[in-house]
Amino acid sequence: MEKTSTDALPLYKNFSEKQETICIFGTGDFGRSLGLKMLQCGYSVVFGSRNPRMSSLLPSGAEVLSYSEAAQKSDIIILTIHREHYDFLTELTEILSEKILVDVSNNLKINQYPESNAEYLAQLVPRAHVVKAFNTISAWSLQSGALDASRQVFVCGNDSKAKQRVVDIVRTLGLTPLDQGSLMAANEIENYPLQLFPMWKFPFYLSAALCVFFFFYCVIREVIYPYVYEKKDTMFRLAISIPNRVFPVTALILLALVYLPGVIAAILQLYRGTKFRRFPNWLDHWMLCRKQLGLIALGFAFLHVLYTLVIPIRYYVRWRLQNRTASQATSKTENPFNTSYAWLNDSYLALGILGFFLFVLLGITSLPSVSNMVNWREFRFVQSKLGYLTLILCTAHTLIYGGKRFLSPSILRWCLPSAYVLALIIPCTVLVIKFILILPCVDKTLTRIRQGWERNTKFSKSPLNGKTDI
Amino acid sequence: MEKTSTDALPLYKNFSEKQETICIFGTGDFGRSLGLKMLQCGYSVVFGSRNPRMSSLLPSGAEVLSYSEAAQKSDIIILTIHREHYDFLTELTEILSEKILVDVSNNLKINQYPESNAEYLAQLVPRAHVVKAFNTISAWSLQSGALDASRQVFVCGNDSKAKQRVVDIVRTLGLTPLDQGSLMAANEIENYPLQLFPMWKFPFYLSAALCVFFFFYCVIREVIYPYVYEKKDTMFRLAISIPNRVFPVTALILLALVYLPGVIAAILQLYRGTKFRRFPNWLDHWMLCRKQLGLIALGFAFLHVLYTLVIPIRYYVRWRLQNRTASQATSKTENPFNTSYAWLNDSYLALGILGFFLFVLLGITSLPSVSNMVNWREFRFVQSKLGYLTLILCTAHTLIYGGKRFLSPSILRWCLPSAYVLALIIPCTVLVIKFILILPCVDKTLTRIRQGWERNTKFSKSPLNGKTDI
Amino acid sequence: MEKTSTDALPLYKNFSEKQETICIFGTGDFGRSLGLKMLQCGYSVVFGSRNPRMSSLLPSGAEVLSYSEAAQKSDIIILTIHREHYDFLTELTEILSEKILVDVSNNLKINQYPESNAEYLAQLVPRAHVVKAFNTISAWSLQSGALDASRQVFVCGNDSKAKQRVVDIVRTLGLTPLDQGSLMAANEIENYPLQLFPMWKFPFYLSAALCVFFFFYCVIREVIYPYVYEKKDTMFRLAISIPNRVFPVTALILLALVYLPGVIAAILQLYRGTKFRRFPNWLDHWMLCRKQLGLIALGFAFLHVLYTLVIPIRYYVRWRLQNRTASQATSKTENPFNTSYAWLNDSYLALGILGFFLFVLLGITSLPSVSNMVNWREFRFVQSKLGYLTLILCTAHTLIYGGKRFLSPSILRWCLPSAYVLALIIPCTVLVIKFILILPCVDKTLTRIRQGWERNTKFSKSPLNGKTDI
Repeated sequence: MEKTSTDALPLYKNFSEKQETICIFGTGDFGRSLGLKMLQCGYSVVFGSRNPRMSSLLPSGAEVLSYSEAAQKSDIIILTIHREHYDFLTELTEILSEKILVDVSNNLKINQYPESNAEYLAQLVPRAHVVKAFNTISAWSLQSGALDASRQVFVCGNDSKAKQRVVDIVRTLGLTPLDQGSLMAANEIENYPLQLFPMWKFPFYLSAALCVFFFFYCVIREVIYPYVYEKKDTMFRLAISIPNRVFPVTALILLALVYLPGVIAAILQLYRGTKFRRFPNWLDHWMLCRKQLGLIALGFAFLHVLYTLVIPIRYYVRWRLQNRTASQATSKTENPFNTSYAWLNDSYLALGILGFFLFVLLGITSLPSVSNMVNWREFRFVQSKLGYLTLILCTAHTLIYGGKRFLSPSILRWCLPSAYVLALIIPCTVLVIKFILILPCVDKTLTRIRQGWERNTKFSKSPLNGKTDI
Repeated sequence: MEKTSTDALPLYKNFSEKQETICIFGTGDFGRSLGLKMLQCGYSVVFGSRNPRMSSLLPSGAEVLSYSEAAQKSDIIILTIHREHYDFLTELTEILSEKILVDVSNNLKINQYPESNAEYLAQLVPRAHVVKAFNTISAWSLQSGALDASRQVFVCGNDSKAKQRVVDIVRTLGLTPLDQGSLMAANEIENYPLQLFPMWKFPFYLSAALCVFFFFYCVIREVIYPYVYEKKDTMFRLAISIPNRVFPVTALILLALVYLPGVIAAILQLYRGTKFRRFPNWLDHWMLCRKQLGLIALGFAFLHVLYTLVIPIRYYVRWRLQNRTASQATSKTENPFNTSYAWLNDSYLALGILGFFLFVLLGITSLPSVSNMVNWREFRFVQSKLGYLTLILCTAHTLIYGGKRFLSPSILRWCLPSAYVLALIIPCTVLVIKFILILPCVDKTLTRIRQGWERNTKFSKSPLNGKTDI
Repeated sequence: MEKTSTDALPLYKNFSEKQETICIFGTGDFGRSLGLKMLQCGYSVVFGSRNPRMSSLLPSGAEVLSYSEAAQKSDIIILTIHREHYDFLTELTEILSEKILVDVSNNLKINQYPESNAEYLAQLVPRAHVVKAFNTISAWSLQSGALDASRQVFVCGNDSKAKQRVVDIVRTLGLTPLDQGSLMAANEIENYPLQLFPMWKFPFYLSAALCVFFFFYCVIREVIYPYVYEKKDTMFRLAISIPNRVFPVTALILLALVYLPGVIAAILQLYRGTKFRRFPNWLDHWMLCRKQLGLIALGFAFLHVLYTLVIPIRYYVRWRLQNRTASQATSKTENPFNTSYAWLNDSYLALGILGFFLFVLLGITSLPSVSNMVNWREFRFVQSKLGYLTLILCTAHTLIYGGKRFLSPSILRWCLPSAYVLALIIPCTVLVIKFILILPCVDKTLTRIRQGWERNTKFSKSPLNGKTDI
């Protein structure tokens, strides 16, 4: 397959479409980066500037004109200017009439202004077609070509033709346009790049609070108590032993808190006899961040697994085992095998492993690309059935860990029970209520309510109507 | 960047498009939820109902009219009615003519009717443009806004303009439309939400059967045999020791079964001398669920890793080690270091770790978002080259685990060899055949066959033709 | 919900669009597979062939004609012919005028010809509308329907209407079209299926080199040295002990190399006083493959974790512990508890676990589907803040591992320090420079430079201008 002579033919690119000209108002960092990218993608670019002759550093190939001159060169004008400086546009209303104005601006704070920048622009230049776009892309990512973070460009606007033009440009630049509907979405789009994991805030603070509480609880029981009564220095437990109590306890409580709101919602629906009244806001918010709670719980469970698996390579553990063995050998005592303890120990470990395994499975299923591939029925099956199975296994793991010592008074120190005893309260409550809810008589009523039936309704729906409609 | 005076300007939203009116037939739960969502997204909604005055609980802002009145208000009518009640539409054929009818209905069973609901509708109202959509979305997810499961709306229809209108509505509601082509796809779309992991069924049952078989096999060898002959109670082995034999054995066999169909297909192609005859159905189905088989194998391998790593913290293991050490100390015997055993033991562990590592890599590559980023050549490289390397490492891991005991008669109990000996049969077979298939002489023929060459063809393709076309 | 009588109605499919005819030039494997797929999706297919009567194996339902006859049947012609045989098309220029020519061809090598096949075709038949598509799909995947690898079809072309037609066909076939812009993109699209992880090449070779170097370094120190001086055979260390030194060392160095280019870039920008000069090419390339470097480092860290966790089940380790315990028992010596060693040991393990945990978190965030869900600010937070925290934890883990032995002369063997001492050089350098860079005075200058400020600029931007534009 050697090169043929035809390769030597002169090349000429015959574009059937003539090059489109795009106007950019503003010669700041983002404006220049966007202009450069557009030139590279085959557009012809005109910059509009307050002082066209003062503008430096512009990409070669681009023209710089005054605002009004530049605007006349193109029917698409991209505004890379801060909102505070939009006033001058009122003087250009004649020229901008029927043109597409693309608002790129972001604010410094969420909901900084009563209306979004794009809506404010639409009101300043009422006869232009305002489209919001490009605000989620950074100048750096345009320059470097490394768009690891996100290639998504949210686009919204009231005029669908104008929006389509912008969507086409976004696509030509190698980015992914996402049509968000009318200009009413601009506010949300402008807030988006200012957010820092908004859905994770409550779960994060909750789990941090739980961690801190149980940390100090364990420090009192396992470091301060032995120091006060036995003058033993067990400070080194701060590194591994105590975290390995705090992490599983936090993980189990968080996992139970994933399923508690669903149980509360069911009780509320049963009590109200209808599903058509809104839940209280705190419950709504709680239900929306269940995924985040679950993933943080998985994180703690993962840490617990690692902390547990390093136990046999810890110096303290090896030292204790060695001494115990040596003293057994020295004293020549028997060490009979305790079958029931072997059973307890092995099943406690096995339940923990199986619980963690299912937990990891739940975590993988919540990856966006995986959850997009399953239908509603499959998602419910995984998140509800497998989820409860995980909770049951992890609760049983903790119960058997306690074994015979569970709630025995000898384990109390300063009247404080072990941390794992506290950890069991919420999971056991959730499991007991859930068990009641799936009893046939309760479940039947709940299912009817969830299908739209109401206990006390003024216009009782005719049974026929109920059967007819979905 | 303080707020400027312009913020105080009165706001007025100037939509350049007038509000679109959409008609929904049926006031059931889904109809109401969809109506509410549409109102929130700026549409104007008219409900059509059998008893307009009886309909309760409708979202405020929506009008309720009789079917015929409602249909006249909009050129898009969404049917949220069960298929059994479509009959009344025949009376409205005049009004519905040239309108877009969106079929939302689902059935209770897969392939419940000979034709899909949407095709049945198209036949009832032949002059309307029927589009199938929204059937994969649940009322609950529309209400709660929590569309974790899937935002995907499959859309199909014969009229491309009607389809485009529906696609636009789907997008405005914040959902992801997926054009599935003509109305022939409706059947598949209607079956989709009824499926529960259809591709996973065969791999799941197969692995469950393998697990159960090897579990009882190991129980016979390791619990019943010692009880019968030595009166030893080793029941506690059920929790960890026996699962930790069953899981690796199942994982290895499943991994080998991932590569077995490819090997069988190659033999079939060599035997037939062509690639243009279809494989038997069982082989086709098997090849399509290789990914699922592999992922289940990975799950078992993961469990095996966890079960193995907890070994040193098991009471039984610690008790045995302690006793052995104590008796060594008491009897003051020497315990010389066995270099060859250290070699065997270490390389067995190292091979297992490397095999598991590659296995996890394969698993990550099969995540939809990762496999979408690689091209065909890269996918083949990972799934074939790395996959076979994983199989080789895991097989070697099992072989060395056996070490010198492998197939020695002393290991037989009631003539039953160890479980791992049985586990090696399929992997070794696959590897041997694969080795033969990649011998240059065999490989050359196979490659030619896969490029379209045929051993016995009536019209033998001219060599020139073969070189010309792709 | 039993079946009603209406099910018995005769079905007739009324397609409102008449069937589209598509012409395929070339009857090779890919042509036939594509034709079959198109027939299945409702298209009517005409093959164009040099010897229409000689063509065998074509899907039933397709017509075979000569090139010129076939071309007249459709306005879309798909060319499944190798580039070397395009010459005959010059004779058909009249017939092909204004038709859509879809170029499917691939080459054998990257950049095999000076211009792309599609551009060459556009130049041969200047009056046809050339569109590049389908080259990333394999005949096998079209036949089997198993499109695991990728459903993505890159499409590019200069005529937007022609491109839209092809995009519609791609979508109807159930594939995902990706518009790549004008025909200039054809070269990249043709190279795409020939690539084998191009971004991974440099990180892979670098890590392989590091591995090999440290492997031999450790072999010298830990196998050859004891053999020469103490005649001890420690060859069995090759399987686990030495890899478990090589892997963490490589992981730490690679992780540091992820953050080194960012630090170098910052120094360059500070030195130059501007961000508008391009970085040297090696630095650009390095910055683009940081993600790959990090993921390989994570792989080595994962291996290190597994190799560490199997330590207590190794025969060598058990043998040593057993002997040590037995000799302690025999000699009846005391083995006092060393609190400071317990501290060191536990915190070294805890830091390692936490570092690995954050590392896994970074890895998960770099999955395409996860990184697409976060905005720029969140991505920066995770990859920069969490990334540096990971580096700090892992470096501290290594430092404390050394503990008091660190740099003590007794640890030198043939003047070679331990491998972990070498491993600390780059991470510590990166952390020290980073610490200097975030000092307020340095950070302020750097931030100004990154916002577009320049130290020595001819036309100094007016402060007002700087505030105006984004």
